[in-house]
Amino acid sequence: MVSLRKEFFIMSIVRELARQAKEASRQLATLTTADKNSALLKVAQQLLADKDSILYANQEDLARGKQAGLSPALLDRLALNAARIDDMVEGVKQVAALPDPVGEITESWQRPNGLLIDKVRVPMGVIGMVYEARPNVTVDTCALCLKAGSAVLLRGSSSALNSNRALVNSIKKGLAGTAVPVAAVQFIDTEDRSAVDEMLRLNGLLDLVIPRGGAGLIKRVVETATVPVIETGVGNCHVYVDKDADPAMALEIILNAKCQRYGVCNAAETLLVHRNIAAAWLPEALQALRQRGVEIRGCPAVLELQPDVKLADRDDWSTEFLAPVLAVKIVATLEEALAHIQTYGTGHSESIVTNNQETASRFLKLVDAAAVYHNASTRFTDGFQYGFGAEIGISTQKLHARGPMGLRELTSYKYVVRGTGQVRS
Amino acid sequence: MVSLRKEFFIMSIVRELARQAKEASRQLATLTTADKNSALLKVAQQLLADKDSILYANQEDLARGKQAGLSPALLDRLALNAARIDDMVEGVKQVAALPDPVGEITESWQRPNGLLIDKVRVPMGVIGMVYEARPNVTVDTCALCLKAGSAVLLRGSSSALNSNRALVNSIKKGLAGTAVPVAAVQFIDTEDRSAVDEMLRLNGLLDLVIPRGGAGLIKRVVETATVPVIETGVGNCHVYVDKDADPAMALEIILNAKCQRYGVCNAAETLLVHRNIAAAWLPEALQALRQRGVEIRGCPAVLELQPDVKLADRDDWSTEFLAPVLAVKIVATLEEALAHIQTYGTGHSESIVTNNQETASRFLKLVDAAAVYHNASTRFTDGFQYGFGAEIGISTQKLHARGPMGLRELTSYKYVVRGTGQVRS
Repeated sequence: MVSLRKEFFIMSIVRELARQAKEASRQLATLTTADKNSALLKVAQQLLADKDSILYANQEDLARGKQAGLSPALLDRLALNAARIDDMVEGVKQVAALPDPVGEITESWQRPNGLLIDKVRVPMGVIGMVYEARPNVTVDTCALCLKAGSAVLLRGSSSALNSNRALVNSIKKGLAGTAVPVAAVQFIDTEDRSAVDEMLRLNGLLDLVIPRGGAGLIKRVVETATVPVIETGVGNCHVYVDKDADPAMALEIILNAKCQRYGVCNAAETLLVHRNIAAAWLPEALQALRQRGVEIRGCPAVLELQPDVKLADRDDWSTEFLAPVLAVKIVATLEEALAHIQTYGTGHSESIVTNNQETASRFLKLVDAAAVYHNASTRFTDGFQYGFGAEIGISTQKLHARGPMGLRELTSYKYVVRGTGQVRS
Repeated sequence: MVSLRKEFFIMSIVRELARQAKEASRQLATLTTADKNSALLKVAQQLLADKDSILYANQEDLARGKQAGLSPALLDRLALNAARIDDMVEGVKQVAALPDPVGEITESWQRPNGLLIDKVRVPMGVIGMVYEARPNVTVDTCALCLKAGSAVLLRGSSSALNSNRALVNSIKKGLAGTAVPVAAVQFIDTEDRSAVDEMLRLNGLLDLVIPRGGAGLIKRVVETATVPVIETGVGNCHVYVDKDADPAMALEIILNAKCQRYGVCNAAETLLVHRNIAAAWLPEALQALRQRGVEIRGCPAVLELQPDVKLADRDDWSTEFLAPVLAVKIVATLEEALAHIQTYGTGHSESIVTNNQETASRFLKLVDAAAVYHNASTRFTDGFQYGFGAEIGISTQKLHARGPMGLRELTSYKYVVRGTGQVRS
């Protein structure tokens, strides 16, 4: 009974926050670009002014995290410092400088009956974000959503609760007195997990929820939500080195795709190598990878070339390691590489290295992923790298947005139809 | 135990159908436009050849429906005849004649590092359709999805089971021997409702589910599905007659929006009238509506003008009547009209009649709906009327597609990135 009451209480709070966000979103949708930009610049100023209190709150989270035994990697993701806050502030300013997608007429045509139809970009409304660790997501999300004319409902991880609360307070202080309503930013300030379930079922109030975090979080959101969701991020990415690859280029690309950063969704997790090039190319490539501390897990054919490599098991082909581990498989044909990617890929980023245009074309056409690369690293799947100026995540679903999501991907559209009394016959 | 076994059996079947569709979708995605078009024309031929057996199957459904006490309206929706089959066949031919969206490069740019990025339209993959009555949806859906390069998994209502089965058999016969794999069309041939629940949770196999039917069906799909969904169809549409409206035009538009067809989602369900024009315009308008058999349910101010009108209750403002019933409210200001639409509208189609450009602009900007009209009937929200050539439904959500969904709205995209060895620094 007590638990039921508590759940009902949390439900009421979450719903009320969303209702306030919805109301604010209506006002936000009517603002000019200048109004939104000047509010974002005020937010940037305020974050700088609040640096000390934000760092203080972050210290609390870090202390709790150490006590709770969080891994050094997680503690590093959680940690803020003056430079990281400066980066966030810079990010907000960059979003303010980006072109405003709202109001853009993307198509316009006239029907034979004289009706003029405009397809116009409009804000999404209220965007929910469910995310883990990294407090910078709080700031990035607010900046991007507000610029795209939408209100936000934020739910961060409990490990970052103090940091996120301090950041949201600062953002709201920054918005006060600007044209952007303070209520356009809402933060679910509780560690209770039932709040997320409530949030994910706010049909009619939430127009979209984006989960950002590990595979577990994303799965939970997809399975629980009745509001529309964009799945992000899980990337089991492959580099396929074809028999017609330039060996030096192939080495550069796999080293970059695997080692430039380990814990990111667009890093390569499996290397596929055509058997005709394996003997000549693979030993040197594996040596270079191992010199950088990468553990290799190979198929039996790889072990024939390098007997000291660990044998890969089935799980290795489907694991997003996010670590210095690489699964390596020798394939007999392009088709075998395609079939492997089809079986184990997550539709994120896939790359082929080859100088054969025909082989490249087949790969680019047949691989079903958000981003397919020819002679380039998978690490380019990123809103900044694509020139979007920023990104809120990388979609791995096919509905609405695929790949890096920038400001445009955070908008919807409507049809504006102008007539002179037309009726349907 | 028996029931569990049965559910498991149905689950296995549904999953297997989807798996076959997924496999077929990969082949379908590589076909040329000519291949797809010639397959659709074969389907059209086959449907004509199978007219008798389709009508026979439909007679069974009608007989069962009469026994089960279906309303005359539902029986009419269910009924096929030679002319309706000819219409379906004509529809398939029209889809074959439409431009192919797949492969279109919608954007193309080069990054400073030399990477060439193409944004390319690609098929969705496997599209699920859950629909009620109208057997023509079976044929329309197949034609549109196949042309858009996607396989389909169909689940019609049990009242149309025999008709749908006959239509699917005919479509599959038509596809046999063409480049389009027969397995690209899959039909869940059972009345068991657990099959729908299974279908809605086929993440990884189904890329999208579209429900088409009444509010109950759509709610159930939205609440059950873990795969991406596009909500369609529920339309509580308004016509607002402003004080600056042309009275004759306003009369034409409300008569058309209400009476041109009653059972459709883009028909008007509520008329809002500015009080300054109400006394002069409304009595005549109500008389014309009543002459056409429309029942009026008015707010108290309407009853002051027309005492014999029935008083509307709160439900009347939120009901999609789909019948010759119209709720009528007199408002004091544009803002009151906007607030009413915001409260009761379903984000489908909303129209203002006015000769005041400023008022029109405010309405078009502030109303949050898939389609907003100035001096035109709401009945134009339709893929054919917009010039899309066909439609699979009208989306009332903001994610992915809004308003009429044609072939383009049934596609996704991917980024094709071509480099010369670029790596990320």
